[in-house]
Amino acid sequence: MSDLVEFGAPVDAAQSVGNLLGVFAFGLSGALLAVRRRFDVVGIAVLAVATATGGGVIRDLIIGRVPPAAFVQVSYAGVALLSALLIFFWHPPVRLVRAPLYIADAIGLGTFCVTGTVTAFQHGMPATSSAALGLVTAVGGGVIRDVLAGVTPSVLSDGELYAVPALLGSTVTAILLHYGQYTYWTGGLAGAGAVLLRLIALRRHWHAPMARPHRRRDDTPSV
Amino acid sequence: MSDLVEFGAPVDAAQSVGNLLGVFAFGLSGALLAVRRRFDVVGIAVLAVATATGGGVIRDLIIGRVPPAAFVQVSYAGVALLSALLIFFWHPPVRLVRAPLYIADAIGLGTFCVTGTVTAFQHGMPATSSAALGLVTAVGGGVIRDVLAGVTPSVLSDGELYAVPALLGSTVTAILLHYGQYTYWTGGLAGAGAVLLRLIALRRHWHAPMARPHRRRDDTPSV
Amino acid sequence: MSDLVEFGAPVDAAQSVGNLLGVFAFGLSGALLAVRRRFDVVGIAVLAVATATGGGVIRDLIIGRVPPAAFVQVSYAGVALLSALLIFFWHPPVRLVRAPLYIADAIGLGTFCVTGTVTAFQHGMPATSSAALGLVTAVGGGVIRDVLAGVTPSVLSDGELYAVPALLGSTVTAILLHYGQYTYWTGGLAGAGAVLLRLIALRRHWHAPMARPHRRRDDTPSV
Repeated sequence: MSDLVEFGAPVDAAQSVGNLLGVFAFGLSGALLAVRRRFDVVGIAVLAVATATGGGVIRDLIIGRVPPAAFVQVSYAGVALLSALLIFFWHPPVRLVRAPLYIADAIGLGTFCVTGTVTAFQHGMPATSSAALGLVTAVGGGVIRDVLAGVTPSVLSDGELYAVPALLGSTVTAILLHYGQYTYWTGGLAGAGAVLLRLIALRRHWHAPMARPHRRRDDTPSV
Repeated sequence: MSDLVEFGAPVDAAQSVGNLLGVFAFGLSGALLAVRRRFDVVGIAVLAVATATGGGVIRDLIIGRVPPAAFVQVSYAGVALLSALLIFFWHPPVRLVRAPLYIADAIGLGTFCVTGTVTAFQHGMPATSSAALGLVTAVGGGVIRDVLAGVTPSVLSDGELYAVPALLGSTVTAILLHYGQYTYWTGGLAGAGAVLLRLIALRRHWHAPMARPHRRRDDTPSV
Repeated sequence: MSDLVEFGAPVDAAQSVGNLLGVFAFGLSGALLAVRRRFDVVGIAVLAVATATGGGVIRDLIIGRVPPAAFVQVSYAGVALLSALLIFFWHPPVRLVRAPLYIADAIGLGTFCVTGTVTAFQHGMPATSSAALGLVTAVGGGVIRDVLAGVTPSVLSDGELYAVPALLGSTVTAILLHYGQYTYWTGGLAGAGAVLLRLIALRRHWHAPMARPHRRRDDTPSV
């Protein structure tokens, strides 16, 4: 602990609450995708835990926090399994899974882009790298979820500004940290802003620009 | 070595034998899937080595054993390449690959859930984390194999209790280690039990419960 | 730096140039695949950065260089984003993406198999492990690119000797390093040789051997 940047008890408590909220939200999103893909209870539990803890594990390996928090604090896997259990017993019909999945994912995204940046900064990473690691923490779990389930990752193909809110949230957090203005209020606002931006982009169908097709008759999709 | 928990020569020898057996079995499963997907000799070798060493590399990164054993001990890659070579020259017709693939995978799963737990425990992880890491070691190689080959991972979609035997095997091993009752006999029994449970579940078509479909007419699968 | 094997300024400069060239080439390949899959500008940027830095990040985690260079040196992400921007504004029609994608990928492959081997060796890995890590560095970015984009990885299914030139390049480099004959000339030749071998194999349709089909009427592909 002596190597960590100290913020005092309120910020540490906010980190714990934020991390568990993000784990729960991403756990829900993983469990919902598993229901949609008609996996059994084991598949639901595995996908929930992998989604909820994956981003943080990647971040921890990169900053050299070994073993990663998810393998030390039992509460992470516990909360993720709780989200899986909830969805196993209570979930919308498969055709209506999309909306709650996207909302849960947005909450996880907005939460983790802030707490991931703070964790990296606390472990001595410079502000720029901390922002990059906040982004990795935020999108990592969803990438693992989508790759495991055989779906193109949201961060690549989702038309509606998936990575942008996470990048904004982690950049604002890194600036706040750099100038010593990070509190649980300003951090909470950054996270809430990221969640809202993602949800508004979804609702209003805001799209990032596509690469311009070349000729008049560009060809059909091929892979 | 001075930081390691010591078990004495018999257990260490059992670890080496178990690890090489698991590497060989998972190598066979990777090579068989590569044959089924009609990859060439390079694809067979790459998939065999990635499957055989992937779970252990992930575990080693998580427990901070750097560089991971697979990049230090040449025997791992050697045994995996041997399994690839065997399958390259001698393999069943593509339509009959399924059964030997599942059997090889079951042997790797049962072996690695024990040896993975022991390795984590030897590197100072508490018993609960060691069990989790045994599970990661056991299922990790198969997840890498299936994702690389473009197949939904067995741990998610395989109906027949894929993760459950591995979790039982690693939990029993962690309990044995915690109470000082781990020997190569008890460990071998835990591994054999996991292999058998998986094979019986396959044979008898034991399924884990599905999340209950919602209405009478639930919709068709959509992704 | 005191732990590193020293080669002197010319080799270090060649390493920097080589790494940035590899990052740029792999960034182009990721951006081109993103265009082919019709991802938006965010997807293009994410796939370019993941492809360009992924192989090096995996290598760095394995050799214990934490945090990995890609999270410390801003130039890596900068060059990768530059390649994404170039492709976003200027790219061939989708049906003609294949050729430039393969050429960019070949340049990244040949460059990284050399610089990856040197980096591992400089961090104290033995020659054999260094060659293996050069291979991992060279193919890792492409594997991440293909898995994220939902395409079977080139290293498995590409008929035309994908891994072989990388393995030759990294093996020659490891031998040069082991016998103290590595200079920026010999290293450059090893890399250029790997690039050329891959391009010639593509042009001449050199294939690695397939596993022999079993009976006369082997069955249709099944997964």
